[in-house]
Amino acid sequence: MAEKTIAEELAKEMKQTSVAEFFERNRHLLGFDSKIKAMLTCVKEIVDNGIDACEEMIYECKRKRKDYVLPEIHVKISKAGEDRYTIRVIDNGTGIVKEQIPHVFTRLLYGSKFHKKKQGRGQQGIGVSAAVLYSQLTTGKATHVVSKTGPDKPAYFYDLRIDTSKNRPEIVNEGVIERFKWDHGTQVELEILGTYLAKGEKSIYEYLRRTSIVNPHVRITFIDPEGKKVIFPRTSESVPKEAKSIKPHPYGIEVGDFIRMAATTKAKTALTFLTHDFSRVGPKVAKEILEKVGVNPRYKPSQITREQAVEIVRIMQNTKFMAPPLDCLSPIGEDALRKSLRTELDAEFVTTVSRSPSVYKGNPFLIEAAIAYGGSLPTDKQVKIIRFANKMPLQYDAGACAITETISNIDWRRYGLSQTGGRGIPVGPAIFLVHMASTWIPYTSEGKSAIAHYDAIMKEMRLALQDCARDLRRYLSRKHKALRQQQRTSTFIKYSEESIKALAELTGEKEEVIKEMFNKLIEAKTGGAPQISEPAAPKDEDFEEIDKFIKEEGEENE
Amino acid sequence: MAEKTIAEELAKEMKQTSVAEFFERNRHLLGFDSKIKAMLTCVKEIVDNGIDACEEMIYECKRKRKDYVLPEIHVKISKAGEDRYTIRVIDNGTGIVKEQIPHVFTRLLYGSKFHKKKQGRGQQGIGVSAAVLYSQLTTGKATHVVSKTGPDKPAYFYDLRIDTSKNRPEIVNEGVIERFKWDHGTQVELEILGTYLAKGEKSIYEYLRRTSIVNPHVRITFIDPEGKKVIFPRTSESVPKEAKSIKPHPYGIEVGDFIRMAATTKAKTALTFLTHDFSRVGPKVAKEILEKVGVNPRYKPSQITREQAVEIVRIMQNTKFMAPPLDCLSPIGEDALRKSLRTELDAEFVTTVSRSPSVYKGNPFLIEAAIAYGGSLPTDKQVKIIRFANKMPLQYDAGACAITETISNIDWRRYGLSQTGGRGIPVGPAIFLVHMASTWIPYTSEGKSAIAHYDAIMKEMRLALQDCARDLRRYLSRKHKALRQQQRTSTFIKYSEESIKALAELTGEKEEVIKEMFNKLIEAKTGGAPQISEPAAPKDEDFEEIDKFIKEEGEENE
Repeated sequence: MAEKTIAEELAKEMKQTSVAEFFERNRHLLGFDSKIKAMLTCVKEIVDNGIDACEEMIYECKRKRKDYVLPEIHVKISKAGEDRYTIRVIDNGTGIVKEQIPHVFTRLLYGSKFHKKKQGRGQQGIGVSAAVLYSQLTTGKATHVVSKTGPDKPAYFYDLRIDTSKNRPEIVNEGVIERFKWDHGTQVELEILGTYLAKGEKSIYEYLRRTSIVNPHVRITFIDPEGKKVIFPRTSESVPKEAKSIKPHPYGIEVGDFIRMAATTKAKTALTFLTHDFSRVGPKVAKEILEKVGVNPRYKPSQITREQAVEIVRIMQNTKFMAPPLDCLSPIGEDALRKSLRTELDAEFVTTVSRSPSVYKGNPFLIEAAIAYGGSLPTDKQVKIIRFANKMPLQYDAGACAITETISNIDWRRYGLSQTGGRGIPVGPAIFLVHMASTWIPYTSEGKSAIAHYDAIMKEMRLALQDCARDLRRYLSRKHKALRQQQRTSTFIKYSEESIKALAELTGEKEEVIKEMFNKLIEAKTGGAPQISEPAAPKDEDFEEIDKFIKEEGEENE
Repeated sequence: MAEKTIAEELAKEMKQTSVAEFFERNRHLLGFDSKIKAMLTCVKEIVDNGIDACEEMIYECKRKRKDYVLPEIHVKISKAGEDRYTIRVIDNGTGIVKEQIPHVFTRLLYGSKFHKKKQGRGQQGIGVSAAVLYSQLTTGKATHVVSKTGPDKPAYFYDLRIDTSKNRPEIVNEGVIERFKWDHGTQVELEILGTYLAKGEKSIYEYLRRTSIVNPHVRITFIDPEGKKVIFPRTSESVPKEAKSIKPHPYGIEVGDFIRMAATTKAKTALTFLTHDFSRVGPKVAKEILEKVGVNPRYKPSQITREQAVEIVRIMQNTKFMAPPLDCLSPIGEDALRKSLRTELDAEFVTTVSRSPSVYKGNPFLIEAAIAYGGSLPTDKQVKIIRFANKMPLQYDAGACAITETISNIDWRRYGLSQTGGRGIPVGPAIFLVHMASTWIPYTSEGKSAIAHYDAIMKEMRLALQDCARDLRRYLSRKHKALRQQQRTSTFIKYSEESIKALAELTGEKEEVIKEMFNKLIEAKTGGAPQISEPAAPKDEDFEEIDKFIKEEGEENE
């Protein structure tokens, strides 16, 4: 028998790695690279899912004209040993049917959201099963899940592990429990290796606080490892309008997606496939496109060849279509944005901008931005940046995020902030907030803590920030003018003392009378000495910068 | 029949997403977020695999005491339309057996490297199938693969697509071709949407150049879209020593991995499981650990409970073990590092450091660093940073990389470079180079262009850079001293002219004679006026910084 080639020997070692094994080895991709971050990631993944489930419940009830309850999220973290914590989260959302519970919590890339074009907190079907995977990796404990889907339904429980080689559930225990907190909802309890941060930018407290602010219809109760209870109250009874599921927009649709859609569509002809299955494609344009590539509009969609698909996609990307419908996105809104910034500090000045929706790679998205200025913020530190994606705070990987990158690329000197060389994070007493809402957020990793650098997204971020920046510049400029006016007035008053005395002596008139005349004069000349509070006055160099650019106001790059 | 609960309705939408579908949607995770980057990623993934296959061939031949051929890589890029390019890469590696070809090129997470603890360029089984996926997504074309495993074997070809919903191959065409360039090897040809950069930091040219420098035994031929041929010659006939496959080191082993290993080990007892299946675990320590957690050393490994496994792993991480064996890692080496920097510029000064191996999460790794200074580099720009991982250049995502972060966290002012506030990338005429070699590189995303921020790794990077930095400081300090000496000498010479004249007049001796005496005196006093080249002299402030810290030399944080 012939000797084996090296390739034959290597062939024996070839095998498929399961997605669970891949992420087990690469757990930093999921947000589990440090014990502090791991704690936050676990809580975040479960809470995000919980809020999604609560909103699903409400929207479905609204559609059916039924009564509904507003979202409640309970989070409890307790110490379970050295560097070990138990995390328990309960929501009053839809609940999960018994048969699906093991799959939802143990299978990576399993869920209902991936194939929907709909703005949601979860999107990939990785989050909560990643938390279960991390718990299993670090403590070996099973995850305890209880779920109830309605008042007449039993509350089922499962103790679950992941069979990582198969990416499938391993059911340790299951049954029914007597009592559940609400009529419907889900409870998740897992034990992990972690480090608990009581406060600060990257803490769970901060995550819940920011989540509560941009989701004012949600009531969050938090019990920390010391047993202290904090309630983030519901500050609005009104539920944000539902983000609608939409069809893919022709801009940026991928050939692969197009072919898959053509193979599985219910449309009978190529023409109706284009007009029904895509957003904003009218029959006239559709017909033109099909004719250009030599596809008979009455063909079956599945008859479109791969080469024709490539051509159709290319032409669609170069054809003018309306922007996607507005109602597929749910912004935070200017009120909540303002409030969010007001709770950060007692700002002198807050400005907010909500851009109209735009599209990247077929996905509609919308950018909101806000800038707060002054208050008790330090004047010699970099501005604070607060990032949100689909109403969830982003607390890690700032350096990798498109938001940070966009801010660094703007020349902030022209808007009244200091910045070395016109690049990098500017310095000044300000907070910048940016929110991206989209049917699909392109995260830089599965851990969902930073937004990838797509040009179309960064352009919208830049325009939103520049809008805010122009308001800031106007404010700083007015403030500077007022300051100068005040200075002129006080100089005038200072010198008038002498003049009043001299005039009184010369005329024989009483000093008070002459003073009164002077005051009237001052008022007439200055329009009343403006009284402005001055907690953190910008330095004069700042104003020179502003003055230099104030003439260019109209010529902003837009 | 009762009305369906909302949870029941949602349940119908639940499904498993395939890993290919996931990456299709998130292609930026694979390095395909822009057309420029996509080109580079495709070439890189195929070339990296090619070099791995060539080295496999050589090491196997060496083990069998057979003759071998040195690695050859041919890369050809040709224009195929507007924004479209055909990429063809041929290597003279092992080749792939016929049955495996479709799987290797179309299944994500498929391969022989994932479960090996061995330093290699590929590690995840994603790279090349990701390139095929991107080609299919953007041009709809099938990928053409030819492979031959030995002189007597036929060269098989396949035209392949990915069935993304199943993560399985779709064979479009297959057969045998008559002629192949070498006795064994693989050829991959695919067409993609891309943008070709002829030169620059992020170009394919730069990737191949840097790859060639740190892999001097590889000969690379490159034909660019204009038909221009560049050969990166082989500069060394000696093949680097083979990186050995090792057993996991007990530091940082995960509970999940431990349990999987215990379930599948060939060891008959818990004791031999620990001593045979882990690196550096001796029988005495193993016995102590097992007894501590109440496991009889003669138990079968599969009898270890999950709770006991958690305890064993915890204790192992707190027990002293030897560092992993050195021969599992293959460094670039000081020669190639120096050469790499010398080709970047004609530096005045180059220093290199190779740290001893260390461990993060059970994976041995090793950091090499080098600093080049001076030459024609600009003095007012940030230093240039060159990053490598397992001998592959990293050209993207610098902001997200542990190397950049480590450099930013060092106070470079104490080593003679300028840096605002002692943080951030320093400014000066220098190039920093850092290489990480490991059995498992923790990339920040599947696109493999940045290293994740693990503390243990960043600590080693810092120590390596500080080692280089101290050499740099010494060099700059000597240079400064020499400069001052030179100044003193020239001052002395300037004044001596007058004295010589006066002395000649007084003594009646010839000026030449007295000048000769003076020259001898100067030489004796100064040890010879040092002649140093001065292409980019550091500013005096730099030296003040250096002088200030020069006394602390011995107390460096180590």
